Amino acid sequence: MKSKVLRIIPLGGFGEVGKNMMVYEFGGEILVVDAGLMFPENDMLGVDYIIPDFQYLLDKRSQVKGIIITHGHEDHIGAIHHLLQEIQAPIYATPLTRGLLEVKLARNGAGSKAVLNTVQAGETVQIGSFKVDFFHVCHSIPDGVGLGIETPAGLVVHTGDFKLDHTPVDNWPTDYAKLAEFSKRGVLLLMSDSTNAERHGWTPSERVIDNAFEQAFRKAPGRIIVASFASLISRMQQVSNAAVRHNRKLAFVGVSMVDNMKIARKLGYLNIPDDSLVSIDQALNMPDDEVVIMCTGSQGEPSSILGRLAKGAYNLFDIKLGDTVIHSSHPIPGNEEKVYSTINRLLQRGADVVYEAVAQVHVSGHASQEEQKMMLNLVKPKYFIPMHGELRHMRQHAFLGLQVGIPEENIAVVENGQVIEFQDGVMRVAERIPGGYVYVDGSVVSGMDPDLMRERELLSQDGVIIISLVLDKDTGRLAASPDISSKGFMVSKDTSQLFSQLRSRIAEIASRSDSSLQRDIERSARDMLYNEVRRRPMVVTSIIKV
Amino acid sequence: MKSKVLRIIPLGGFGEVGKNMMVYEFGGEILVVDAGLMFPENDMLGVDYIIPDFQYLLDKRSQVKGIIITHGHEDHIGAIHHLLQEIQAPIYATPLTRGLLEVKLARNGAGSKAVLNTVQAGETVQIGSFKVDFFHVCHSIPDGVGLGIETPAGLVVHTGDFKLDHTPVDNWPTDYAKLAEFSKRGVLLLMSDSTNAERHGWTPSERVIDNAFEQAFRKAPGRIIVASFASLISRMQQVSNAAVRHNRKLAFVGVSMVDNMKIARKLGYLNIPDDSLVSIDQALNMPDDEVVIMCTGSQGEPSSILGRLAKGAYNLFDIKLGDTVIHSSHPIPGNEEKVYSTINRLLQRGADVVYEAVAQVHVSGHASQEEQKMMLNLVKPKYFIPMHGELRHMRQHAFLGLQVGIPEENIAVVENGQVIEFQDGVMRVAERIPGGYVYVDGSVVSGMDPDLMRERELLSQDGVIIISLVLDKDTGRLAASPDISSKGFMVSKDTSQLFSQLRSRIAEIASRSDSSLQRDIERSARDMLYNEVRRRPMVVTSIIKV
Repeated sequence: MKSKVLRIIPLGGFGEVGKNMMVYEFGGEILVVDAGLMFPENDMLGVDYIIPDFQYLLDKRSQVKGIIITHGHEDHIGAIHHLLQEIQAPIYATPLTRGLLEVKLARNGAGSKAVLNTVQAGETVQIGSFKVDFFHVCHSIPDGVGLGIETPAGLVVHTGDFKLDHTPVDNWPTDYAKLAEFSKRGVLLLMSDSTNAERHGWTPSERVIDNAFEQAFRKAPGRIIVASFASLISRMQQVSNAAVRHNRKLAFVGVSMVDNMKIARKLGYLNIPDDSLVSIDQALNMPDDEVVIMCTGSQGEPSSILGRLAKGAYNLFDIKLGDTVIHSSHPIPGNEEKVYSTINRLLQRGADVVYEAVAQVHVSGHASQEEQKMMLNLVKPKYFIPMHGELRHMRQHAFLGLQVGIPEENIAVVENGQVIEFQDGVMRVAERIPGGYVYVDGSVVSGMDPDLMRERELLSQDGVIIISLVLDKDTGRLAASPDISSKGFMVSKDTSQLFSQLRSRIAEIASRSDSSLQRDIERSARDMLYNEVRRRPMVVTSIIKV
Repeated sequence: MKSKVLRIIPLGGFGEVGKNMMVYEFGGEILVVDAGLMFPENDMLGVDYIIPDFQYLLDKRSQVKGIIITHGHEDHIGAIHHLLQEIQAPIYATPLTRGLLEVKLARNGAGSKAVLNTVQAGETVQIGSFKVDFFHVCHSIPDGVGLGIETPAGLVVHTGDFKLDHTPVDNWPTDYAKLAEFSKRGVLLLMSDSTNAERHGWTPSERVIDNAFEQAFRKAPGRIIVASFASLISRMQQVSNAAVRHNRKLAFVGVSMVDNMKIARKLGYLNIPDDSLVSIDQALNMPDDEVVIMCTGSQGEPSSILGRLAKGAYNLFDIKLGDTVIHSSHPIPGNEEKVYSTINRLLQRGADVVYEAVAQVHVSGHASQEEQKMMLNLVKPKYFIPMHGELRHMRQHAFLGLQVGIPEENIAVVENGQVIEFQDGVMRVAERIPGGYVYVDGSVVSGMDPDLMRERELLSQDGVIIISLVLDKDTGRLAASPDISSKGFMVSKDTSQLFSQLRSRIAEIASRSDSSLQRDIERSARDMLYNEVRRRPMVVTSIIKV
């Protein structure tokens, strides 16, 4: 009776359950929701980004009936070209999300592989045996949707990233009526966004930012530079509105921000009057108090435009006294140090900086506790699985579920790769499959290799010492003086005496050692370096016989 | 008339002005306040810790009349043995701070060099031409002091780290009477703690933690493990009080925490009944619900006890279902990712984790905005210099100064190394001296070397490729096949084909190249590796002629 079982499998991301990819499977048919990437943590050295491990799908390629993308953020669309490389299934998305997908696919040369279907929020689409209601949700990007997935095993509500904003910038609140309708139909399972489960109360409306912007614009004596995410379309709208009110022209800089702005304008999700927009060149030639510049770099990325401005390393212009920088974003955990250092450097260069801690120039795009409880009470599910959060968030979200009356045994806190099954209306936590993530590191897509990471970690601490020996293949004796060099170890002027000492020691070992020569040299070098300068570089020995 | 000038110079730390060291200079006499260290930021690869650059003092060794340590935290005492290596001056500290200094000095073999003087809060000490009133301040360690420094140029109030806690755990509030007395005498300058200048309102009293602890203790079904800073003596007192109330025995683990606990008990700053204390071995053999274990690791440090418990790598015991971990600390910026990952891992292992976001199990030890304004209004200084903060904090603190009526021209926001002079009651921002920090990296104490950091950064990203060549010194031709190895580059099973390809290319270059051989090989290797696998490792070539 396998075919009567609904299987749900969250995949990918480190700990953020099902954020990057969620798999729904029924009767030999599969629906994939989202295909996103995550940026590496600070200790994932050299890794470019991370995508879900979708090995599970590769064995069932032909069963994948569709891929739904809930909204246009990187953590939901960023792995789409990797997925399409393996799996040819039609994609379903709302107009703006589709527009952003097209930009993304074109950039990765994967445009031709994709079959894209536009769905309007409010529509219902049959994808294999899944009948999916797309319903509008507010989030920090327009045109986001949640899903009502009707399966023969019951109705599953998948919120996507959401907040319950009554006064969103695009005047399009979350579709409460649809949620109420679901509850009337009877909801088997709610899968709901846990990101802000530690935050009390309600997340403030995007609209509150207008006040902080208004104040900052009123006070700014010179140029205004607004830094935010490239995908924060509603923030672009708010900045444009403020610019129009204050008779300033608006220029965008940064490839991804400009691309997103263009597609959002073209599709009608962003209303900026033509005569308000200027190029950055024009902006830089206008009086300072008639200009607003919007750019990326709000996460302190050193190579972003704001990062380069903070270091005085941006080629188009420099920060100067009288500039006002509005830092319209919240640091993602792990980025705090870089963000604050950027703010300090901007202050140092003479800018006034307006940031979250001193004015409400950013709000979250995710529901807080009261909204999460509201969602639970609107949908009235039989079962509840918190998703889109680290373990700590999902635990808190589970407590909220208990508070609104969901029985403990009907709540499952699961990790990526954990299969959950529903049969005859009953939930069962089933087997665990590989559900982690894979690294994209250069051109290589691979599982995590702890030894490689450990080597990079060691290299980053005290660098590397390279010892090259040439031995006579007949006598086994040194044929030349050993060559020693280093990278990342010490300033080179400080190493000459140390290395000549090390050379003598090696020559001595080489004169008496045999099969264990390499090991003896490396051990001896390590000991000597630690004793002399208290460092532990990696030691690499190359022995060539001639 | 040089001698009539009071010079003030904040030193050390990255951006946190005067936090690690402040220099007061008058008439050829110098008073040093604090000698602390900072822990490196995430991008300071391989650096153990950072100390102030006190080059300025080395030229004036004999003029240093005394070193005052305001309290026993690492960022105020941690560089003392480096300072004493260069400068022999008597140290002044309150009893607990002295006790912690002695432990620190003994551990660094610098105990014999130190002349230590105990000063009680409330006492006045003449140090050269500086007459110093030590006044009690509340902070997250007992026995902290601020200073009223009477100089011939006027009275300077140096708050040290402080908060205005009306109900501190040791029942010893900040000495308001002394502050009022200063204002009566007339204060030339206030130098005040800016750490929390972005926080509205008042910092909650340490006492509020008791409620959260009480609730967590009441609910805990098994062992309770409390993680905090090794120096948080008042937290130890609160944990002990809760343990006594709930008939649990208390065990401390971790060298620094045990050392600090012992010295604080010995000096009467920590009141734990003898029969409440047990060893960790005893604790592990008692029923789970009769035990509290206190340890370090609240900043997510992987090698700390909590860090090892989270990874299942602690040798004394493992986390198990039923354990309650109370994470009693706030992540220092830059540590968030590690802290949250530790919490997630503890949850994964079955512990219930109580942390700041879900219960008030930690409060700050620093004054918030209302307290900072209170300090300004109590002291009524003519001039105001925010200290102990990054630039962003000091700017906010300066705004508070403006709000309480200090004229803008009487407020100076300065950076480390900026000399401020007072003459005839007038402030002047004078010259800038090297006032940054020096790295302690292994046994080497040195200025920052950007090239070395850059090499470590590159090594950490894509590792290193090592190419060794042996050339015949007569013909210049390869005497053996090139040897190629790598560290941190790729998993070694994936490199064999790539490296054999590279070997051929090198042999080809070696056959036709001459003086530019090394450069040609490295360039060619870099190009090939990038084209083939999109990585940019460092390439090191060693050429030996035989």
